[in-house]
Amino acid sequence: MRVYADNAATTKLSEKALETMLPLFTEGYGNPSSLHSVGQAAKTELEKAREKVAKAINASFKEIYFTSGGSEADNQAIRTAAYQGSRKGKNHIISSAFEHHAVLHTLNALKKEGFEITLVKVNENGVINPDDIRFAITDKTCLVTIMTANNEVGTIQPVEEIGKICREKGVLFHTDAVQAVGHIPVDVEKIGCDMLSSSAHKFHGPKGAGFLYVRKGIILKNLIEGGAQERGKRAGTENLPAIVGMAAALEEAVNNLEENEKKVSSMKKILIDGLSGIEKSRINGDTEKSLPGTLNMCFEGIEGESLLLLLDSKGICASSGSACTSGSLEPSHVLLSMGVPVEIAHGSLRLSINEYNTPEEMEYIVRCVPEVVSYLRSFSPVWDEIKKEEK
Amino acid sequence: MRVYADNAATTKLSEKALETMLPLFTEGYGNPSSLHSVGQAAKTELEKAREKVAKAINASFKEIYFTSGGSEADNQAIRTAAYQGSRKGKNHIISSAFEHHAVLHTLNALKKEGFEITLVKVNENGVINPDDIRFAITDKTCLVTIMTANNEVGTIQPVEEIGKICREKGVLFHTDAVQAVGHIPVDVEKIGCDMLSSSAHKFHGPKGAGFLYVRKGIILKNLIEGGAQERGKRAGTENLPAIVGMAAALEEAVNNLEENEKKVSSMKKILIDGLSGIEKSRINGDTEKSLPGTLNMCFEGIEGESLLLLLDSKGICASSGSACTSGSLEPSHVLLSMGVPVEIAHGSLRLSINEYNTPEEMEYIVRCVPEVVSYLRSFSPVWDEIKKEEK
Repeated sequence: MRVYADNAATTKLSEKALETMLPLFTEGYGNPSSLHSVGQAAKTELEKAREKVAKAINASFKEIYFTSGGSEADNQAIRTAAYQGSRKGKNHIISSAFEHHAVLHTLNALKKEGFEITLVKVNENGVINPDDIRFAITDKTCLVTIMTANNEVGTIQPVEEIGKICREKGVLFHTDAVQAVGHIPVDVEKIGCDMLSSSAHKFHGPKGAGFLYVRKGIILKNLIEGGAQERGKRAGTENLPAIVGMAAALEEAVNNLEENEKKVSSMKKILIDGLSGIEKSRINGDTEKSLPGTLNMCFEGIEGESLLLLLDSKGICASSGSACTSGSLEPSHVLLSMGVPVEIAHGSLRLSINEYNTPEEMEYIVRCVPEVVSYLRSFSPVWDEIKKEEK
Repeated sequence: MRVYADNAATTKLSEKALETMLPLFTEGYGNPSSLHSVGQAAKTELEKAREKVAKAINASFKEIYFTSGGSEADNQAIRTAAYQGSRKGKNHIISSAFEHHAVLHTLNALKKEGFEITLVKVNENGVINPDDIRFAITDKTCLVTIMTANNEVGTIQPVEEIGKICREKGVLFHTDAVQAVGHIPVDVEKIGCDMLSSSAHKFHGPKGAGFLYVRKGIILKNLIEGGAQERGKRAGTENLPAIVGMAAALEEAVNNLEENEKKVSSMKKILIDGLSGIEKSRINGDTEKSLPGTLNMCFEGIEGESLLLLLDSKGICASSGSACTSGSLEPSHVLLSMGVPVEIAHGSLRLSINEYNTPEEMEYIVRCVPEVVSYLRSFSPVWDEIKKEEK
């Protein structure tokens, strides 16, 4: 059996999305900036996609800017707020310690440029306390950037409350919603955010497309200068097939959201029921305020990487945390920020499932993981140590 | 008859490229950063693509960084040189007045940040004099950025001579080779450039992929911060289908380069022979030092936009200049930089053909353009004026 349970890293392209993309590769391949009919047909497709994307998050099409993906959107949003802030003498940004690296590394770069960065803590369940944000805001604060849902542990943040605080205080609020869009309801009006980032390949859209929602009135700062695409705010010939595929995938995801949430949650329950009984294991993150498809666990006494490789040999694709840092030997910054001890954080496993998975696959995971954990522990000196201490 | 003669704006995806891309949408959709076998298979495809791209321009695979396209590559190259320069107290950049906007607008942004920009002139044939570059270099110069071939008039620049001068003077040399790669031989060793930008969709690759060649030893500055993709220099999940499609299209283009050049040049000859006899017309750019497929002409007494729309009604897709600025009423900055008078620059037509075109299509263009030009002149007061002055 082959089970793909790494959907937080990337997803399979939806058939519907692919269908909409194919004619744009070989027939409707015009440049949307060209005046002739082939170009104008492409322009029409582009704007239809913008309408669809806007509708999916309750925005206006004028508030949607297409990017090459979530990281670019995050970078541009943060750079925009930093630029606007610096013009008003505001150089303070608030975020959390367990954001995606697209946010944290951009903030690091800004720190070197003279910005002051406050990273609020998350609780042991991986949830941010909005009061910590309120407390951290000063008259120098130009941006609060907090993710809608965490990519490693799946916890959903109180973004609506944070949005409300930011509005009260007159501070821009950006949210990285890369893991949330297409999986849980995302409504920019309800959240009250000023900017929101999303990435197509996390909801069965193609790689190479994402979008940044930017509330009307906010003037975006270019990350990529050049042609007048995206109302002059993102240069480069639009990746039309991917953009149109993204819109199709998002429409599909949003139309089936409730049904998918139910299906995926019930599958996750199979995983939780089957795996949480493993000795010296823990679920990382809140089991209530969580994405339906993301489950993160730690198993004491083993290395996450070995666990992954053995699961892979059984046909199960999973992850120890974020794919983006998988080459690194460091334990997850997300787990550490939640207070998981280093030695335990090393033995993490992220299973991220979605509506393409089946209950049978869950049963298979539930059979395999305990076997592999036991096997790895059977020759783990760390595990021997843990057992000795118990006595 | 429908004739697509706007290949400098964008091209049809090659069948071979599409074939290589398709399995990556629905089967090999793993994230190259994931440790499991699906991810590692994606990683293998990514690195194979890097090898192919490197080989096509005589570089090492370690010198290739994938981007979302040419504009991003231009931005990152220039920002890198500016950053490295500023650390050494060097804040002077040399470019030309007729670069692509991805270069010129990035330079404008740097100007606002305190950089000094020198734009060397081009001659009336659209060619830069390398001595002008030599003369402009000072001990403050950190970058020379000159395009390999111009996107509007197709002229090929003396990049090898410029590369030599830059090397002598110890100044970084970047070239925007977006219009050149896949159409004329491009060899980074012969050019002697330190950085080179390219875009897939200009050589029958997909939109959404490009690459930046960066000579070994130069430390790239991130434009997009985040995950550790592209050796930490370009964050965001790799657009694997597009990257693999780009590599396939480039390999195909390079393998057929000589044959295509011959075929396309002979078709361009049909256009030149058929159109240059039109009264009060001129060819913009050098007919010798030129891309095989790009022909730019001006017809006095008419508006380029009307010409395009009428040609479009006859099934001919062409452009007045760069697609990226087609919405603008300003005449082409490229033509103005070559000394074409404003009133004549307004009547420009860019026909950009490639090996997908046929001689029959050229004959059709040669029949249609004079008809349309005559028709437009028949009710043009400007044309009446021109004829009156003649008498």
